[in-house]
Amino acid sequence: MTTKYVYDFAEGNRDLKDLLGGKGANLAEMTRLGLPVPPGFTITTEACRAYLADKRQPAELAQEIDTHLRQLEATMGKTLGDADDPLLVSVRSGAKFSMPGMMETVLNVGLTDVSVHGLAKRSGNERFVWDSYRRLIQMFGKTVCGVPGESFEHAIDSAKLHRGTTDDLDLDVDDLRELVSAYKRIFKDHTGRDFPQEPRDQLELAILAVFDSWNADRAVLYRRQERIPADLGTAVNVVAMVFGNTGSDSGTGVAFTRDPATGARGVYGDYLANAQGEDVVAGIRNTVALADLEQLDPASFAELVRIMNVLEQHYRDLCDIEFTIERGKLWMLQTRVGKRTAAAAFIIATQLVDEGVIDLDEALRRVTGGQLAHLMFPAFAATQIRPLTRGIAASPGAAVGRAVFDSARAVQWAAEGEKVILVRRETNPDDLPGMIAAQGILTNRGGKTSHAAVVARGMGKTCVCGADDIVVSKGQFTVDGTTVVEGDVISIDGTTGRVYVGEVPVQASPVVEYFEGHRSGEPLVLAVDRLLTHADAQRRLAVRANADTGDDAARARRFGAQGIGLCRTEHMFLGDRRGLVESLILASTAPEREAALAALLPLQRADFVTILRAMSGLPVTIRLIDPPLHEFLPPLEELAVQVAVAEATGTPHPHDVAMLAAVKRMHEQNPMLGLRGVRLGLVIPGLFAMQVRAIAEAAAAVAREGGDPHPEIMVPLVGAVQELEAVRHEALQVLRDVAAETGVDVPTLIGTMIEVPRAALTAGQIAESAQFFSFGTNDLTQMGWGFSRDDVEGAFFTRYLELGIFGVSPFESLDRDGIGRLVRIAVDEGRATRPDLKIGVCGEHGGDPDSVHFFHEAGLDYVSCSPFRVPVARLEAGRAALPDGGSDTR
Amino acid sequence: MTTKYVYDFAEGNRDLKDLLGGKGANLAEMTRLGLPVPPGFTITTEACRAYLADKRQPAELAQEIDTHLRQLEATMGKTLGDADDPLLVSVRSGAKFSMPGMMETVLNVGLTDVSVHGLAKRSGNERFVWDSYRRLIQMFGKTVCGVPGESFEHAIDSAKLHRGTTDDLDLDVDDLRELVSAYKRIFKDHTGRDFPQEPRDQLELAILAVFDSWNADRAVLYRRQERIPADLGTAVNVVAMVFGNTGSDSGTGVAFTRDPATGARGVYGDYLANAQGEDVVAGIRNTVALADLEQLDPASFAELVRIMNVLEQHYRDLCDIEFTIERGKLWMLQTRVGKRTAAAAFIIATQLVDEGVIDLDEALRRVTGGQLAHLMFPAFAATQIRPLTRGIAASPGAAVGRAVFDSARAVQWAAEGEKVILVRRETNPDDLPGMIAAQGILTNRGGKTSHAAVVARGMGKTCVCGADDIVVSKGQFTVDGTTVVEGDVISIDGTTGRVYVGEVPVQASPVVEYFEGHRSGEPLVLAVDRLLTHADAQRRLAVRANADTGDDAARARRFGAQGIGLCRTEHMFLGDRRGLVESLILASTAPEREAALAALLPLQRADFVTILRAMSGLPVTIRLIDPPLHEFLPPLEELAVQVAVAEATGTPHPHDVAMLAAVKRMHEQNPMLGLRGVRLGLVIPGLFAMQVRAIAEAAAAVAREGGDPHPEIMVPLVGAVQELEAVRHEALQVLRDVAAETGVDVPTLIGTMIEVPRAALTAGQIAESAQFFSFGTNDLTQMGWGFSRDDVEGAFFTRYLELGIFGVSPFESLDRDGIGRLVRIAVDEGRATRPDLKIGVCGEHGGDPDSVHFFHEAGLDYVSCSPFRVPVARLEAGRAALPDGGSDTR
Repeated sequence: MTTKYVYDFAEGNRDLKDLLGGKGANLAEMTRLGLPVPPGFTITTEACRAYLADKRQPAELAQEIDTHLRQLEATMGKTLGDADDPLLVSVRSGAKFSMPGMMETVLNVGLTDVSVHGLAKRSGNERFVWDSYRRLIQMFGKTVCGVPGESFEHAIDSAKLHRGTTDDLDLDVDDLRELVSAYKRIFKDHTGRDFPQEPRDQLELAILAVFDSWNADRAVLYRRQERIPADLGTAVNVVAMVFGNTGSDSGTGVAFTRDPATGARGVYGDYLANAQGEDVVAGIRNTVALADLEQLDPASFAELVRIMNVLEQHYRDLCDIEFTIERGKLWMLQTRVGKRTAAAAFIIATQLVDEGVIDLDEALRRVTGGQLAHLMFPAFAATQIRPLTRGIAASPGAAVGRAVFDSARAVQWAAEGEKVILVRRETNPDDLPGMIAAQGILTNRGGKTSHAAVVARGMGKTCVCGADDIVVSKGQFTVDGTTVVEGDVISIDGTTGRVYVGEVPVQASPVVEYFEGHRSGEPLVLAVDRLLTHADAQRRLAVRANADTGDDAARARRFGAQGIGLCRTEHMFLGDRRGLVESLILASTAPEREAALAALLPLQRADFVTILRAMSGLPVTIRLIDPPLHEFLPPLEELAVQVAVAEATGTPHPHDVAMLAAVKRMHEQNPMLGLRGVRLGLVIPGLFAMQVRAIAEAAAAVAREGGDPHPEIMVPLVGAVQELEAVRHEALQVLRDVAAETGVDVPTLIGTMIEVPRAALTAGQIAESAQFFSFGTNDLTQMGWGFSRDDVEGAFFTRYLELGIFGVSPFESLDRDGIGRLVRIAVDEGRATRPDLKIGVCGEHGGDPDSVHFFHEAGLDYVSCSPFRVPVARLEAGRAALPDGGSDTR
Repeated sequence: MTTKYVYDFAEGNRDLKDLLGGKGANLAEMTRLGLPVPPGFTITTEACRAYLADKRQPAELAQEIDTHLRQLEATMGKTLGDADDPLLVSVRSGAKFSMPGMMETVLNVGLTDVSVHGLAKRSGNERFVWDSYRRLIQMFGKTVCGVPGESFEHAIDSAKLHRGTTDDLDLDVDDLRELVSAYKRIFKDHTGRDFPQEPRDQLELAILAVFDSWNADRAVLYRRQERIPADLGTAVNVVAMVFGNTGSDSGTGVAFTRDPATGARGVYGDYLANAQGEDVVAGIRNTVALADLEQLDPASFAELVRIMNVLEQHYRDLCDIEFTIERGKLWMLQTRVGKRTAAAAFIIATQLVDEGVIDLDEALRRVTGGQLAHLMFPAFAATQIRPLTRGIAASPGAAVGRAVFDSARAVQWAAEGEKVILVRRETNPDDLPGMIAAQGILTNRGGKTSHAAVVARGMGKTCVCGADDIVVSKGQFTVDGTTVVEGDVISIDGTTGRVYVGEVPVQASPVVEYFEGHRSGEPLVLAVDRLLTHADAQRRLAVRANADTGDDAARARRFGAQGIGLCRTEHMFLGDRRGLVESLILASTAPEREAALAALLPLQRADFVTILRAMSGLPVTIRLIDPPLHEFLPPLEELAVQVAVAEATGTPHPHDVAMLAAVKRMHEQNPMLGLRGVRLGLVIPGLFAMQVRAIAEAAAAVAREGGDPHPEIMVPLVGAVQELEAVRHEALQVLRDVAAETGVDVPTLIGTMIEVPRAALTAGQIAESAQFFSFGTNDLTQMGWGFSRDDVEGAFFTRYLELGIFGVSPFESLDRDGIGRLVRIAVDEGRATRPDLKIGVCGEHGGDPDSVHFFHEAGLDYVSCSPFRVPVARLEAGRAALPDGGSDTR
């Protein structure tokens, strides 16, 4: 069986996107629907892959193209290169996933010095023909042969200058004929050969150029950013040309079946008379609103509206369309399910439900957690302020603050209470403290995988990068003559990439306001509410929140959290409690240590009371203290310098000297792999017992006041069942003691984090001692990959993303092959030991859409994430539970 | 079916050690052989476990004991407690594994104020009877009821003082009768009740006391040190008493069928006339050599020699024996396969082969890698110097140096070229630098799991700990009036625990001298050679060495290494090359970096030439640079202090300031999880390419001079196949270039370390790009458990060993459940992808006996370890390959 490399439009359909690309599949679909599509054929992605692998086209390909070309000539009654009535074709790329502007198109293939006369004769429009020919030479030269575009643009500009105009339409036949000669000279100057006069050569070279464009730098970069696999290849569509540039009864346009910004129904789009599609894209002339076509060409308009209805019914979704009118005859050049804003996605999905076009399951498939997350960021309000410039939208959000130009200044000003935006040519690991201190980051260089972008996304911080108009120098930056000096307020929009001078008012997210109970009734929040409600009904995964305070817990509950999956107790050791924690750490005798613990007990208990009260009726998983204790002491280097300098110049303070000794004693080479978590609990007598007592007493207090506390005690960093068993033994005793003392026995689960690889690998043993597992996927990723997020994210993730070692940082989206395997092992073997084992995840991946799908598949009971991510996780957990895993079926 | 808790000696045999303990099983075995064993029965370990679990004896136990007791009475024709002719019994512990001195024995059970007269009548030896009674009260009081031993000793001492003697034998009947009265008063004073006059009560209390002794502190500690499981329990043997203390025709002794120190055949042992066994142990009177028994009692001697031959033939090994002669009649009280020195183990095993008693396989089972390792340490020569004191032998070897009492001094003196011994009350993590600098460590407190012991073993450093006689104070220590001040030379023996003042000459290991070709012909080296040769013939695992220099490689080869499994290239970046490495790190432009790399190239090449030359004909696995580059720069804290102090008092050196900036830029929170290994290679252009070029050029040079180089390039820290593929791609290009330049094409494998958990979890993918795997089990353990060896070994391993979370540090012996599982996954899935994948291990576990067995089972091709461990690994690999995995079948 030989491979079939070429499909006629009549042979394909929209399900063949893998093979025909999106454009080819949809052209075939429209052909099947009987819509007016110019005849043509598609060369498959398989042909492209074969060509790219062997660096030459497959043996059978040329022959198959010839066969389809002859068929196309027969259909059209014209022949390629014919001196009397030539067939012209367009050659257009079309990959499976849309890569707008990334790849190549050549129109008017088939025009030569000979056929140009035949076309002129047939069309009776000599101006149009010479215009088409010059377009071919320009596009072919640039796309196929790499002639710099500017050369052609200079030539046409000088022709217009000569004619005294700025509008292409003012060039007449003679001008265009001269321009063709000039273009051919430019072509020869740059390529060393004449513009090819054999139409079949033009076609072949154009096809191969489209294939090659798959691996052009910008396409590679785009795919990496959009997470499109690198090995798909592109299809090539060869279509009989229709002409929008044959006069005022011709034209070209784009149309949407609904407003892609708001979802409102109607006729949306743009139209440009007497033009080819590229003119619309190039923005050379101003388009008119599509509605105006009704006046210009009522018949074509009516036909277009009819076709739009056909397509919307057929695709059951908003479609966007490219069309051309050639002398009053409407042709469909492309359609696809249209892109839309996040808000429109929700509104359109529910509209289609109301119209009876799709059901709620399908509506849920059509929105994503990413879109919902987007809607939960604050945004700049509509503003009169003109953006100063625009960079790459690298990490969403809206940030306002004073511009600062180095990291130390950012830290200093932030410490003084100023909001700052860190502006750097590019960032490196030295800038980390400043990035942490800043509201947002603006850089001059680098794309979505630059250090600034990667780190900012990791921190959830607004970032605009690669704003290449700005010139950063010491203490200021300038754009086109506008200078911003240190301390000036600027505003940056990480969602659009816009940069403003001055303070742009920030508008809260309407979706967040709705959750908070401050907004209702608008189409967007109604749509979000409706789809979330449906997701909630579908999902098997429960969604909890990570929260350390009563306020956070209450907010999480408003966002739909069904409990707390991670309450970090170490946050309760900060602030004005540092003194007590220091005494605990520095205690050199048992009584000193016990006194410090006794002083901490009522404070911890009070914390737990507020959280258990806010989550009455729902589970609250409290993690015993996790970080190394020296994190609560001053940093070694700083203190060592302070004491050494004091010694060199006088006498250091005895407290500092004592503290330095303690810090040195507790210093660790790799604190992440040091004395922390359960290890602390087993080494420092009474520490965990104090925390367990605080939890038990708090639960008893909440129960006595009529609440319904469900505390769950979680032991961090367990690697072996023996560790957990030792802690569990001690904790059970404390729980019994408190029950006896208070007379209230609150059922309390005891379980463990699964965050050390060995814990996952021995989960069958650990489950003997654990009532629940909660995956700490951040640590699991760090230890499983052997890299610390703090150290490597900036230092080499940029390079790794460039090299394609990651498609996306494993801290953003769970690495299924490696870390995911540990998760699956632990789930399977933990449940084998204890069938009713409750299993969740409380790492940041709990709020990542792709990871939520994985956790659903792996059989977890719940995910837990930051309160703001709770709605996202609810939505994605619902989508994951749909029969086909929520994948888009359009 | 009810459990059988009691076995008559006639019912058991030596295979029932789990149930009857070692002593009970061997008593039964001797009974089966028809040897003169006093009748008796054994209460099983199962009864002990049931008792310890429920804190009361199982219901059926008392009844079973009664049944066996009646049977024993029938056999002996005597009754327990009889006023005319009482039966007396001994009650002795006997666990599965020998725990000498750890557990309890009570003799003469059955003597009361009544039966003492019956025995006196029957024996006609009143002195013996009162002596036996006072022994019972003493042992019962101490063992069963916790009466302090000193109370009884004071009483007997004052009796002897009164009589004007120092010898027990000078006490007459009246003295002993008085002593019994005194002992009974002491008993009542301490316990509040009379000495029990019901023999059955005596028996029951003694049995339960033996059970309880299983969980006595010293037994728990001993088991932990010897890695004996805590849940086995002990059996109890109840045996009809025979008496060595009935006169000069009676006595007691121990015998060995061969010399346990040298393995020489003959009659070895000690004999003490008119005594019970405890007198031998207590060393109250001087024993005579066993050979002298021939004069004292020729008949008994001949019978003993006959029985020794029977036992040796039966057990096919050296046996040790306890016996008693009662009025000219020989009784066997115990036998077992005897302990022996490491040297004797090798010699005896080969002797038995020569005698046709066992085959070579069996001989190989009877020696261990641990014993061979022991024989490879240097030891102190025989010396006239009397040991000052003795502590716990915590980490073997012989170390001589000046005593220092704090870590800083140790570091300072060592830097000045002095050899030092660090002496501390106990060590803590602050002492680490001093421990590294010292030849050995001596502490006053702590056992084999103390900080000092654990860390010293980890470093392979000699350590004596818990020398509780020494009193450490500032700048000196004293033992019994002898004072050692800072700077005095001391010698410590980590193999025996002995501590000497002055320099004891150190003797090289004869086994090492044999490997080095400096010794031959002695029984020990002949035996070692013969068993290693047999091991080599048996084993499937190849054994390679970890070596970084030509000298190490050559030595490894002499020790039998079949190649280099790990050559670390970063060691080649130290010493006088630091300057070049600094330039590389500080290079801010590509030309600077390239110049630094070019300067390093010839140096690396020369290193590789010497190693490949030394290993001509054998594979040499060279690991590309692994550690973070900042390890080659000065430490941050030190430099920061230096610059800050210089700034405070004058002007810092500009080089220091620049260096500080670089060090700060490169500082990592967790360097082990930072920018190292393959990450460096992918981030720093040219670094790996330079190393690959140095390897390829070195191989070509060695091949041109007639050598046979087999280089293998190993990429460290790979976690994803994409990383390896990127390096491989670059390396293959360099190899091709060098082959073209030199005209020599040396086949070179490219493979990877498996040391990151994710690498093991995705080994099926990684094997697509790797020609070999080498497990780095140190990093795999660190990342799999999530602890850094540097940070936690001292900080909490002591506590973890105490809690039984580890039986042994997972850095000493591979953790099979967790890390071993990763190894198995990687082996299975790597080979599934690439059936001829070569797989080895180059972590320190490669030389650990237990781990070698695991690697054999897991199907590895080779282990690689330090040169000194190569013979150990050869031996253990041979043992692992024996049909039953080398387990001891005796």
